[in-house]
Amino acid sequence: MPYTGEQFHLVHRTAQENTPLLLLQPCLALYKPFIHMIPQSQAAALTKPGYLTLVRRNVLRALGQQPPLPTPHRPGCDARAFPPPLPLPAAASTGGGQPGATPAPGTGSRPRGTQLGQPLLCVLQDGEVFEKAGVNVSVVFGILSEEAARQMRSRGKSLKAKDGKLPFCAMGVSSVIHPKNPHVPTMHFNYRYFEIEEADGTIQWWFGGGTDLTPTYLNEEDAVHFHKTLKEACDKHDLKLYPKYKKWCDDYFYIKHRGERRGIGGIFFDDVDSPSKEEVFQFVKSCAKAVVPCYIPIVKRHYHDSFTPEEKLWQQLRRGRYVEFNLLYDRGTKFGLLTPGSRIESILMSLPLTARWEYMHTPPESSKEAEILEVLRNPKDWVH
Amino acid sequence: MPYTGEQFHLVHRTAQENTPLLLLQPCLALYKPFIHMIPQSQAAALTKPGYLTLVRRNVLRALGQQPPLPTPHRPGCDARAFPPPLPLPAAASTGGGQPGATPAPGTGSRPRGTQLGQPLLCVLQDGEVFEKAGVNVSVVFGILSEEAARQMRSRGKSLKAKDGKLPFCAMGVSSVIHPKNPHVPTMHFNYRYFEIEEADGTIQWWFGGGTDLTPTYLNEEDAVHFHKTLKEACDKHDLKLYPKYKKWCDDYFYIKHRGERRGIGGIFFDDVDSPSKEEVFQFVKSCAKAVVPCYIPIVKRHYHDSFTPEEKLWQQLRRGRYVEFNLLYDRGTKFGLLTPGSRIESILMSLPLTARWEYMHTPPESSKEAEILEVLRNPKDWVH
Repeated sequence: MPYTGEQFHLVHRTAQENTPLLLLQPCLALYKPFIHMIPQSQAAALTKPGYLTLVRRNVLRALGQQPPLPTPHRPGCDARAFPPPLPLPAAASTGGGQPGATPAPGTGSRPRGTQLGQPLLCVLQDGEVFEKAGVNVSVVFGILSEEAARQMRSRGKSLKAKDGKLPFCAMGVSSVIHPKNPHVPTMHFNYRYFEIEEADGTIQWWFGGGTDLTPTYLNEEDAVHFHKTLKEACDKHDLKLYPKYKKWCDDYFYIKHRGERRGIGGIFFDDVDSPSKEEVFQFVKSCAKAVVPCYIPIVKRHYHDSFTPEEKLWQQLRRGRYVEFNLLYDRGTKFGLLTPGSRIESILMSLPLTARWEYMHTPPESSKEAEILEVLRNPKDWVH
Repeated sequence: MPYTGEQFHLVHRTAQENTPLLLLQPCLALYKPFIHMIPQSQAAALTKPGYLTLVRRNVLRALGQQPPLPTPHRPGCDARAFPPPLPLPAAASTGGGQPGATPAPGTGSRPRGTQLGQPLLCVLQDGEVFEKAGVNVSVVFGILSEEAARQMRSRGKSLKAKDGKLPFCAMGVSSVIHPKNPHVPTMHFNYRYFEIEEADGTIQWWFGGGTDLTPTYLNEEDAVHFHKTLKEACDKHDLKLYPKYKKWCDDYFYIKHRGERRGIGGIFFDDVDSPSKEEVFQFVKSCAKAVVPCYIPIVKRHYHDSFTPEEKLWQQLRRGRYVEFNLLYDRGTKFGLLTPGSRIESILMSLPLTARWEYMHTPPESSKEAEILEVLRNPKDWVH
């Protein structure tokens, strides 16, 4: 999560403390059929009731501070159950990485947010099916910097700070999967939850997230399946959601200087805080549960498809556009990279393993390459 | 050149009208030994005396406007000598590109600057020696947008606008060369000249530019040769210039989120408007003339060196950092991409043909990869 604050601080919250972590369960399931990289012990520990409370208590203890308010006792909440810091799984082809990123020399900065334990981050590189795939689970809390608060305000949130300080807590799961085969599309999803404590003690909360697909070549059947699955997840809650969030997705993933979308969209939403926390959470869970059924059938259908060197090359050029979007426009990436103390390797996990830029590459008219470009320039409605 | 304005306007200047174009001559020479891609006829036309005056007159005529002030007659300035729009040379491996970039649909924007004729842009892809190499010559004039003017002001220029309008003229040459062989470094140079007309008719002018080297592996002899050649070019004008511009280069090409410089530096300067236009121009010409002798001997020394797949892979990872710098930090790239009507393909010509991102790649201690990283993290003085 890119949001970090200026100093360690406990945000006391009494209700639904660990509920957003339940979002993980459907997301983690995504990786089971193909990656087998997330040890079940870790997944289980993270989703265990009371985990979050215990992590906080432990962090405070480690810093020699005590929680300003006692954390209410809960059934199943036992200090001995506190899991040790989660080791980062070694990246497949790099011989294993160091868990902590080296601080940038010359930046003179210190971390401004507190990560609860090690982030649960898994990256697969050079796999059989996936060229690069990662999942990043993060829980951060602290004091929002004025810069971060301004960013939120510009998105419509009115926040009353006490002495310029806004305690916050953020948690989320994000994932990008870049397959090897150009007939299998890239998929990205991110679901996140924020809380901010205002001067008068009011808790502002909201959810954000989305799931979107980036094919190298257009397959209409896949596009319809993907959007239909997401629409069904949305429709269970409110028929207005899918059309609204489908358009938001097309608008958000717009590579302005190219006049193209990054992919064929999906759903995207942010700052959602109505009708009620419980209802939005139910909606977000439905979206997260739809990740596996909207994507995995497409992977299974195509990962054995044969492809030509020219098709691989076109995929690499599209990966170049993916890099352009992520580095130039993606709010999370930009914000994260500009925030001292953030974990660069986690933020840039979304970049493909390889990418390519050719000067003035223009596919021939009526080619398969021109067909996908047309859809990226003029988004279609895939389901009605 | 990224600077564009809001509407067509003639900036009348009476002296040294085409002198900055003379900068081209040493730069064009750089490409002769290896690329043979710039037809001599074009190079000759661009550097012909009176060319700029003639291009302006022709643009005004095409727009049905007349110059507000008559252009003084010059010897050798003959309307019949006006060259036709320069055709864009076809990019080697793309089957030839379209000269005009398609405007981004949905941006609803129009060009805000006027390019004098077609830009002289040459790109080589997949060559024997160079993986991707381009040279871009551009002359633009118009009215500075308030945004662009603000950018300049933030860099220390105080500009008095008339009704919020600042007529400007900008011209420059830029080039990036990404070689195939990982033992041949990437080289970049850019030399540019600006003029802005203030409310009272005062002309503000300044030069900017620089030359810098980005090796995949450190070769101390090459690094010393490169910096020594640049230092000699600077020292002819003022002994203070090289140390100042060497440091400016290390500071500018800093990838903050990585804590690394893009390469081993060179020289970089901006907003230089003293001691006099003629003296600065002489200095810039010396820098431009140094491009060939500082780089070509290094290319010749190494382009036949043998290399392993692992060395090629490390080169690709470094190319990824090059992309990160250019898309996230480079002022010209960012400004150009955000300016409606700018020519995207020219701006992104600087990106490498291919790049790679691996999660948590950390070279082993005391390896050749760690050696270059050390220098990128802690810049060295190569000449004293």
